[in-house]
Amino acid sequence: MIQPNIPETKQPRIVIVGGGFGGVNLAKHLKDLPVQVVLLDRNNYHLFQPLLYQVSTAGLEPDSIAFPLRAIFRKQKNLEFRMAEVTGIRPEENILETGIGEIHYDHLIFATGSNTNFFGNKGIEANAIGMKSLIEAVQIRNYVVKQFEESLLMSNPDDVRAKLNFVMVGGGPTGVELAGAFAELRKYIMPKDYPSIPQDMMNVYLIEASPRVLNSFSEETSRKTLAALQDLGVRVMTGTGVKEYDGKVITLSTGEQIATQSLLWAAGVRGIPVKGIPQDIILPNGRILVNEFNQVKGFTNVYAIGDIAQMTNDPKFPKGYPMVAQVAIQQGVNLAANLKLQMKNKPMKGFTYKDLGSMATIGRNRAVAEFAGMKLSGYFAWIVWMIVHLMSLMGFRNKLVVFINWFYRYFTFERGTRIIIKRGAANIVKLKQSVQ
Amino acid sequence: MIQPNIPETKQPRIVIVGGGFGGVNLAKHLKDLPVQVVLLDRNNYHLFQPLLYQVSTAGLEPDSIAFPLRAIFRKQKNLEFRMAEVTGIRPEENILETGIGEIHYDHLIFATGSNTNFFGNKGIEANAIGMKSLIEAVQIRNYVVKQFEESLLMSNPDDVRAKLNFVMVGGGPTGVELAGAFAELRKYIMPKDYPSIPQDMMNVYLIEASPRVLNSFSEETSRKTLAALQDLGVRVMTGTGVKEYDGKVITLSTGEQIATQSLLWAAGVRGIPVKGIPQDIILPNGRILVNEFNQVKGFTNVYAIGDIAQMTNDPKFPKGYPMVAQVAIQQGVNLAANLKLQMKNKPMKGFTYKDLGSMATIGRNRAVAEFAGMKLSGYFAWIVWMIVHLMSLMGFRNKLVVFINWFYRYFTFERGTRIIIKRGAANIVKLKQSVQ
Repeated sequence: MIQPNIPETKQPRIVIVGGGFGGVNLAKHLKDLPVQVVLLDRNNYHLFQPLLYQVSTAGLEPDSIAFPLRAIFRKQKNLEFRMAEVTGIRPEENILETGIGEIHYDHLIFATGSNTNFFGNKGIEANAIGMKSLIEAVQIRNYVVKQFEESLLMSNPDDVRAKLNFVMVGGGPTGVELAGAFAELRKYIMPKDYPSIPQDMMNVYLIEASPRVLNSFSEETSRKTLAALQDLGVRVMTGTGVKEYDGKVITLSTGEQIATQSLLWAAGVRGIPVKGIPQDIILPNGRILVNEFNQVKGFTNVYAIGDIAQMTNDPKFPKGYPMVAQVAIQQGVNLAANLKLQMKNKPMKGFTYKDLGSMATIGRNRAVAEFAGMKLSGYFAWIVWMIVHLMSLMGFRNKLVVFINWFYRYFTFERGTRIIIKRGAANIVKLKQSVQ
Repeated sequence: MIQPNIPETKQPRIVIVGGGFGGVNLAKHLKDLPVQVVLLDRNNYHLFQPLLYQVSTAGLEPDSIAFPLRAIFRKQKNLEFRMAEVTGIRPEENILETGIGEIHYDHLIFATGSNTNFFGNKGIEANAIGMKSLIEAVQIRNYVVKQFEESLLMSNPDDVRAKLNFVMVGGGPTGVELAGAFAELRKYIMPKDYPSIPQDMMNVYLIEASPRVLNSFSEETSRKTLAALQDLGVRVMTGTGVKEYDGKVITLSTGEQIATQSLLWAAGVRGIPVKGIPQDIILPNGRILVNEFNQVKGFTNVYAIGDIAQMTNDPKFPKGYPMVAQVAIQQGVNLAANLKLQMKNKPMKGFTYKDLGSMATIGRNRAVAEFAGMKLSGYFAWIVWMIVHLMSLMGFRNKLVVFINWFYRYFTFERGTRIIIKRGAANIVKLKQSVQ
């Protein structure tokens, strides 16, 4: 029989579900408190999601944007990590139910993040490709290279085009960065690796429902981003929605159709709620209603932070804060401070979001960034983007490997990791089952 | 309908099956010949198998020991690559049957390599883990980290031990290198990542049927290797065979039993023959009988090189050459020269193997090497081992990334890639199926 085997201490136990930006930063800031921190995650690593799109487009190894949680917390003696999936809670007993058994808590924090939001369209959900997890990114990479290899076997030009049309839906930073990376594959890699395929057989589409790409940025930045994307050959369609997708043909809101086997969906995310949370506080977008202290509505010792939490105190964000890393990090830090205040019987401090700015990269020497009232674009924004992302990556080895990959790519125009890791050997069936 | 779509030329077509050491070196040396080279592989990359064991033990990213075949042959204008699985041949028509359609050849070379040899023991085959492919190595890494995570959930010490007993079978270079790497995981990583598990709960066994480890090396080297392994804490059992394994308990030839969920099988390899080759020239070890020109017995335009070929001309190797990279490389180069001679109507030159020596690494600062009549061991052999392997890796990026990983590991005693990449998201089912 398996059980969590978490040592019992006399200190209060703070259980954190999720090792993303919110959970990790909260846990770190509980380091010197006389508490026992229990961190749970379904994976054993922290994933640096902002660079996930580079894994899907063969620019980075998956390992270089993931960092083992045990390594992050090796020196934090008051923390226990367990790899576990949460299945429910019994709040009246302060019990969390997980795949490895029941865990008692004094304080419980949900930092479970978000998943792809298909807005209820079953056809799209069944056939489009989301991009929120490491395995999805690796599978996309495998899939894209495979599309190219298979396109060589087609004789009908329409079949080739259907294989080499790549459609991104969602003109936010993820969609823009993906479209830019695909356009660069087309521009720099395709002529070298597949010289026999005419380049116009491959097309990259970016579809956005609102009137402009990067609509959370200024209009000026949107305009520059659109120009940069078009310059790279991306077919940008704004004010256009996706009505249906059957795995072969996309039908747009305009009635237009695009034949493609690759629809990458970056049009939205939704919170991943946990079973056992009262249904009436879970919003249609999957987020959990919290107050300004990140306390889940109706609870005093259950909290939610980051993407999964919807906090509506700030009049600038009536629908809650954006689902981005900065909010999660800042809420994690604030909640750690509040738990400390609680232990001293002092009043907690409400959360206020400090927008540090946002940025997106479109391709080599092209990025946009807005922060501290400044609008940057082009080469300088691209350098800033790289520095900020390198600095934020966890672990020296990861920083170094990512830097070298970027450096190498910059001068060689190469993508290092265009390999298809596929299954096949019979005697790994056992392993396959056991790691699923 | 898919078809190979290989352009028809007036030049003779040389079809090579397999992009391993033999196939790649053969293809490269056909560069300046007035022929069309068609290279087929089930994967789109060349795998540097000698470092596979470092992927399974979380020391290297899988991507850094794989190199896209298209990148290798980008500048070789007379070569066409197709990702394809061979299903049979019709030699009377000079036709190769593949998963992407039929391909006509003038010369056909099998360079399909080898797979794990379980010597017909079904129980071992069903439950042991082979290590010949990249996906197997990644799965082993996932599995090993998962064993550690799960051991924390066990309360009975026997259950913990069964999770943390790792048994390598086969005392050749692969088994020795694996055992050394596992012993280093135990020595350097386990106390840091799993301080609550007593170190003696983890045991690394190396089981070898012959009287000594590395029995293709000198007795002196065997002795030093044994001492180094024992110094690292590996339990080496020579003169011992494996009778049975049911996934839970290994029964040895001595009657002794070891409870383990992880049996890594490195006790032998066998050729991967191709359907359609007459059964009477395929040996029980899966290899194909060839003459001194690598011509398959009974054919003049069908050849086999490397692991899959059994050449018995050399009285020093009455059972054929060892199944190692050097033989494959040299046979590839020799066959290219012979194809050139044939085209000039000159007599071909029989193959002679030039043994460049062999080496194995046991751990940091510990390796053994024998070449040019010299026997090296310890720090200097380890440096030589690293230089030789770095130089042999294809591609500048791979060399650099591997070097940095080694450098980093040497000074930090860390393993960078202890992450479990597991499947889970529902919407990748489509991708999963399509890349299998």
